[in-house]
Amino acid sequence: MSMNFARNVRGADIPVGPASGWFACLMVVLMAARGFCVSPDETAAELGQKALADSGAMTIVADLTTEIGPRLAGSDAEKRAAAWAKQRFEKLGFDKVWVEEFPVEHGWIRGEERAAIVSPSPQPLVVTALGSSVPTPPGGLEAEIALFTSYEEMLAVPTNGLAGKIAVVTQRMTTTRDASGYGAINRIRGAGPGEAARRGAVAYLVRSLSTDDRRLAHAGATRYPADAPHIPAAALAAPDAAQLERLVAKGGPVRVRLLLTPRLPGPVTSQNVIGEIKGRERPDEIVLLGAHLDSWDLGTGAIDDGAGVAIVMAAAKCIRELPQRPRRTVRVVLFGAEEFGLIGGRAYAAAHKAELNRYVVVAEPDLGQGPVYAFQTGFVNPDDPAVGRMRAALAPLGIAEDDNKSHGSSDVEPLAEQGVPAVTLKMDATDYFNLHHTADDTLDKIKPERLNQSTAAYVVFTYLAAELPADFRGAPTSGTR
Amino acid sequence: MSMNFARNVRGADIPVGPASGWFACLMVVLMAARGFCVSPDETAAELGQKALADSGAMTIVADLTTEIGPRLAGSDAEKRAAAWAKQRFEKLGFDKVWVEEFPVEHGWIRGEERAAIVSPSPQPLVVTALGSSVPTPPGGLEAEIALFTSYEEMLAVPTNGLAGKIAVVTQRMTTTRDASGYGAINRIRGAGPGEAARRGAVAYLVRSLSTDDRRLAHAGATRYPADAPHIPAAALAAPDAAQLERLVAKGGPVRVRLLLTPRLPGPVTSQNVIGEIKGRERPDEIVLLGAHLDSWDLGTGAIDDGAGVAIVMAAAKCIRELPQRPRRTVRVVLFGAEEFGLIGGRAYAAAHKAELNRYVVVAEPDLGQGPVYAFQTGFVNPDDPAVGRMRAALAPLGIAEDDNKSHGSSDVEPLAEQGVPAVTLKMDATDYFNLHHTADDTLDKIKPERLNQSTAAYVVFTYLAAELPADFRGAPTSGTR
Repeated sequence: MSMNFARNVRGADIPVGPASGWFACLMVVLMAARGFCVSPDETAAELGQKALADSGAMTIVADLTTEIGPRLAGSDAEKRAAAWAKQRFEKLGFDKVWVEEFPVEHGWIRGEERAAIVSPSPQPLVVTALGSSVPTPPGGLEAEIALFTSYEEMLAVPTNGLAGKIAVVTQRMTTTRDASGYGAINRIRGAGPGEAARRGAVAYLVRSLSTDDRRLAHAGATRYPADAPHIPAAALAAPDAAQLERLVAKGGPVRVRLLLTPRLPGPVTSQNVIGEIKGRERPDEIVLLGAHLDSWDLGTGAIDDGAGVAIVMAAAKCIRELPQRPRRTVRVVLFGAEEFGLIGGRAYAAAHKAELNRYVVVAEPDLGQGPVYAFQTGFVNPDDPAVGRMRAALAPLGIAEDDNKSHGSSDVEPLAEQGVPAVTLKMDATDYFNLHHTADDTLDKIKPERLNQSTAAYVVFTYLAAELPADFRGAPTSGTR
Repeated sequence: MSMNFARNVRGADIPVGPASGWFACLMVVLMAARGFCVSPDETAAELGQKALADSGAMTIVADLTTEIGPRLAGSDAEKRAAAWAKQRFEKLGFDKVWVEEFPVEHGWIRGEERAAIVSPSPQPLVVTALGSSVPTPPGGLEAEIALFTSYEEMLAVPTNGLAGKIAVVTQRMTTTRDASGYGAINRIRGAGPGEAARRGAVAYLVRSLSTDDRRLAHAGATRYPADAPHIPAAALAAPDAAQLERLVAKGGPVRVRLLLTPRLPGPVTSQNVIGEIKGRERPDEIVLLGAHLDSWDLGTGAIDDGAGVAIVMAAAKCIRELPQRPRRTVRVVLFGAEEFGLIGGRAYAAAHKAELNRYVVVAEPDLGQGPVYAFQTGFVNPDDPAVGRMRAALAPLGIAEDDNKSHGSSDVEPLAEQGVPAVTLKMDATDYFNLHHTADDTLDKIKPERLNQSTAAYVVFTYLAAELPADFRGAPTSGTR
């Protein structure tokens, strides 16, 4: 899956890959070489078509997930991924590449994880510890379960109503295109262990936040509140949650044994890896693309978020290959430690607090491979003609206009919270939560045409944001050259 | 999912379930109650329609997979399943129910199973030990892999050509409706470890015999030849096989660590559980339906072969509920220890050798939930009018005519090999090998409409085979009443 690079007459790297991609790329270079007679809109359209044909994103995600594999926040594997990313930025000809380290308060390393129904019908259960979960006693624990088919039902239990029990919540997640089904219930994973502990539970099991029927448990972080005991917490595979529901429905107590041996090694470090393409006219103004380099440890982090890493790296690479840099700087930040609560995103926002006024716009893909179906802005001047030009350039990719309520996503949210303009290129998440946070998040699940469309969307938006003089930080501008 | 039973005026148990099923059942009883004016063809048609609406098979497979779960050959769980089956036969009103024990030469109990890429990019691999595999040394073993994308390539390696290596075969399985894609390559699992050992390999990994991309390894038995060392053998999940292919394609050695700790406790026992409905006129003539009660240990054996158990139990139950028994005896045999090589089927054929001439016809579903799409006979008299009546009765269920080459399937093959007539109600196996032998073989994968159609096919065929006087063991008969 690797791609060779050859140097063309103007000094830009162009991929020597499939003939169509090479030809498309050459066309862009030739078009751009015509100089002032090519409008930014035409260049954006050409860039989009080139990326659709072969953006180079598949090569990036294939290499990352194969050469590194899983890359848990704060782990050696995440550090190897950071070194890999730095090298890749350099190989792709980014003008400046650097790494910014930051502390992670609590490291977490998965251990053994086993569960079984003890009675009435002994059989194993598929579970995975939630991120940050404390371990069970070394020999495991065994208790009767108290099963709730909705989280609200558990919350209705009074203090000590779950004393000595393993609380089990089997609420289903609904499939949605915009990931709202996840947002609606992820507190069941995040806050559930604390709520169960407040009611006296000795452990907590949650049906995986999953829209699929695979016998794989979905990982994901949980957060212990300060005012409740920290109890071991794990996700059940969807079929195992259904099995417990059936056994409970038959009447009589159901006893479960649980063993989790995660380690919590205390403070660790993570890092953000940054590559930028210096703007030719306004190098101090930044269009920032983010993605997170860390992943859960069960899969190889292909859709979460190797895909995002590939999309933003490849989009910037396509811009880098133009015969001239765009007006503004394009900065790509590959964040660390996203999965434990946007730790890299918050560290970046804190470290760059003094330069927040330099960010013209920020965006981050963190919902898999796409396709992108809508363009949502979060501008003070959404009616700026430049926004219309972006919409017009995205339309041929099947991307619709959306509202102006973007507050960014994932790691760029801490920037958007401080007033930095953000956009969301909304990705179709219909099948994302089939794979998300599971062992099944592997390269084979990524379809090149979906990844290329998403990359095309990012390259079109990014190029226009960096090239058009419109400034989304202030009053509307003409948006013309 | 349990079903209540009420006694009707004629003393037959009829299920009180969904109104439609109850009504259909009542209609059958009323039709049959009219006595000699109802032809077997009409009764078969009614039975088929009743089973399509609600055969009771879902309840059986739900109860088996929930109340027992996995039931590995020779295990305590398999014995619990046998006790469950005996009780269920009795509850369903079978006339005679008994258990026949038999020895299994080698028991096998799965232990820990872990594998990882050690270099160039450390990451875990999803594997599962093949049934009968010997363990690795207690600390595991580590070696460079020799990867073959086809089994023939490995067979072309000369003696000692794999010395010290872990042999890896990643040949893909093709998806077929008739399961021929499995038949074409299952020697890669069965004979592969022996062939690798002959060439000096220290362990053997085979890409799961799978048509799916799930990160689950598929279990299944292997057989060591007498003339080669017994080396540890495991299946790789499909995405892991692809990962190794990509790493090997990048060049340089790939080292893998493997730990398998199965136990081989020596001789164990298993059992066949038998229930029969005594024929009203020719009780010594037997129509035998088989299915296997054991399953692999990773899932709950829903499609393999809880579905088959449910189909044949429910089909016989529907016949049992008729106001009068059919002419011949219907015997249902739930075989033990199928997964380790038809051990229960062979034991049955041996134990019943003296009565082989009593079997009018045998059949067994062992390809999941169906639907059944073709009716294949294996008769000396395939042109008997009774066969035409069977075909006509099956046609409304969407079941086509097939050839006369049936030699039975699974556990009834040892009977067919000795000349007992067999039929194959061919099941659509297009998606069967997505789930087969994995942790994902769970109840939620079964669609009631598919299971009911298969049960309808079995009830129609079985009723006519037991009721029509045609005898497939000898010369054609008139096939009329």
